Amino acid sequence: MFDLGTLSAPIVQAPMAGGISMPALAAAVCEAGGLGFLAAGYREPDAVAAEVAELRAATGRPFGLNVFVPSPGGPADPEVVARYAQRIAAEGELGEPRRDDDHFEAKLALAADLRVPVVSFTFGFPVAARCEALHAAGCAVWATVTTPAEAEVALAAGADALVLQGFEAGGHRGSFDDLAANDLGLLTLLRLVAGITAVPLIASGGLFDGAGIAAVLVAGAAAAQLGTAFALCPEAATSPVHRAAIESDAPTDVTRAFTGRRARGVVNRFMREHGEAAPSAYPEVHHLTAPLRSAARAAGDPDRLHLWAGQAHARARAIPAAQLIDELDAELRAALADPRLP
Amino acid sequence: MFDLGTLSAPIVQAPMAGGISMPALAAAVCEAGGLGFLAAGYREPDAVAAEVAELRAATGRPFGLNVFVPSPGGPADPEVVARYAQRIAAEGELGEPRRDDDHFEAKLALAADLRVPVVSFTFGFPVAARCEALHAAGCAVWATVTTPAEAEVALAAGADALVLQGFEAGGHRGSFDDLAANDLGLLTLLRLVAGITAVPLIASGGLFDGAGIAAVLVAGAAAAQLGTAFALCPEAATSPVHRAAIESDAPTDVTRAFTGRRARGVVNRFMREHGEAAPSAYPEVHHLTAPLRSAARAAGDPDRLHLWAGQAHARARAIPAAQLIDELDAELRAALADPRLP
Repeated sequence: MFDLGTLSAPIVQAPMAGGISMPALAAAVCEAGGLGFLAAGYREPDAVAAEVAELRAATGRPFGLNVFVPSPGGPADPEVVARYAQRIAAEGELGEPRRDDDHFEAKLALAADLRVPVVSFTFGFPVAARCEALHAAGCAVWATVTTPAEAEVALAAGADALVLQGFEAGGHRGSFDDLAANDLGLLTLLRLVAGITAVPLIASGGLFDGAGIAAVLVAGAAAAQLGTAFALCPEAATSPVHRAAIESDAPTDVTRAFTGRRARGVVNRFMREHGEAAPSAYPEVHHLTAPLRSAARAAGDPDRLHLWAGQAHARARAIPAAQLIDELDAELRAALADPRLP
Repeated sequence: MFDLGTLSAPIVQAPMAGGISMPALAAAVCEAGGLGFLAAGYREPDAVAAEVAELRAATGRPFGLNVFVPSPGGPADPEVVARYAQRIAAEGELGEPRRDDDHFEAKLALAADLRVPVVSFTFGFPVAARCEALHAAGCAVWATVTTPAEAEVALAAGADALVLQGFEAGGHRGSFDDLAANDLGLLTLLRLVAGITAVPLIASGGLFDGAGIAAVLVAGAAAAQLGTAFALCPEAATSPVHRAAIESDAPTDVTRAFTGRRARGVVNRFMREHGEAAPSAYPEVHHLTAPLRSAARAAGDPDRLHLWAGQAHARARAIPAAQLIDELDAELRAALADPRLP
């Protein structure tokens, strides 16, 4: 099974669903000695299989695949969703606010069939039997957690490693329950979870340089996971309007406005106007706003689009992924060797 | 002028206004090789002078004094405050919602007269001339900042060091503008500010053990500031009801419910019921709720009282301050010497 210790740089490229972390980026990261990730979220199983094949054609190194866990419970209250749809109707074309499970079963089966080296989960963690099935296929199984309580659930179900997502992170909060979110800062979360488990911990959220990575290693992480930091790499499929937002100094905030689930992005008009009113209704609101957001992306309109980004996004470097990993690795080693340390 | 390098442990005890960090705690911290702090906020200048004298009688080591900077602009809209007063009227006895400047001028003069070794500021930073006057008296002048932009303001006015307050921190957010708050995680804030200045940085927010302190040192901090971590020490004047909340596993959140200014505390009924409705009106709401909170403290009622606490508060140790500093120092050295580090 995959061992983080085999990476030459303790750096994981975060899965960024929605078309950012495609095979080209993951391959570049893997070849540079980090762990590249594909994001299965929102995609058809066939497309995921094709991406895995494309990545494997580009690199022989291990890689990861992130899968969304369906929300427990029934669909969101249709009236609440309809009220939000009415509110945002003037923004442009809307989609059908359906509930689906993002092909969870099919993606699990695919990951096992393809013997994906690392399978990570977001929005929850599968039950122990599913985790065992992945283990039987040779997959390492990672959980994304935002609190010690979520860590306990994932560990009890067999997680091999935990991706700790601090409040600083861009994109969706990995919280198992969108309404019970507890926003812990990365360093605090890391120290809390390090006290309850010996499995490898991967620290994520707001990291953009090697000194920050060195800090989480000292605090007990086995590796750091960076998302926004890779989003400006030429290998990332980040849209021009999204790149411009990441390069800007604009603040970020957490909002349900785009998907009905809390996520961090660069503050824009849509977030300001609709964030307070947006219900907790995922994936219904995701599907509702999808056409609107696609149109905005195509038109280069930054105000009708989710601009996922972590804190300190303006410090992302528009350089090839291999160069970024080399720079981060050199910086983290320099930080650990700083002669001013006690 | 005071030099952080002269501390035997790179640990600052956070000023905790409202009667927690009194001379006994500060003296114990100073004697153990850290930097103890008194909190001038909410107190009469004579009381502050007496506390400085008491501290100096107990230790010959340097110490700090924290001063609140008055809010710029006029008083809060009386109608908005009256509406909030009406809302919480059934909670108990209320006070007069007055605006004051917390004796800012008198406290600045006192700090200079008494040649306080370190004067730190919260909620803003004095203009350059005032900072110079403190320098002329031999005081080191520190700013509390929550964003790189606030750091720039304080540096331009002559700050000798910056206390970086992450989102994780307990008590009031030090934001210069309560309405323009930008909640950065500690590690991200630290790396951002380290990129713009060479003055010593003191990292604060959610730190509770030596490995966390080691992490911020690696990330560029000269020291760590801990508040809640000291609140259970026998030398701290923390009330029994507050101690119980800190020892509990209850979540924290940021609220304006008690003071009209954003502050992090253990979630209780008052926060849940009034937090959303509370206006940005400091110190008016502070004075409004003060009698209510005093009565609750005396009665041991945890539901009508601000229970300031940082994230991970349950990990505070109920041990003497000197023992805490020794343990933290040993832990941070062990973390930095971890043979598993690259």
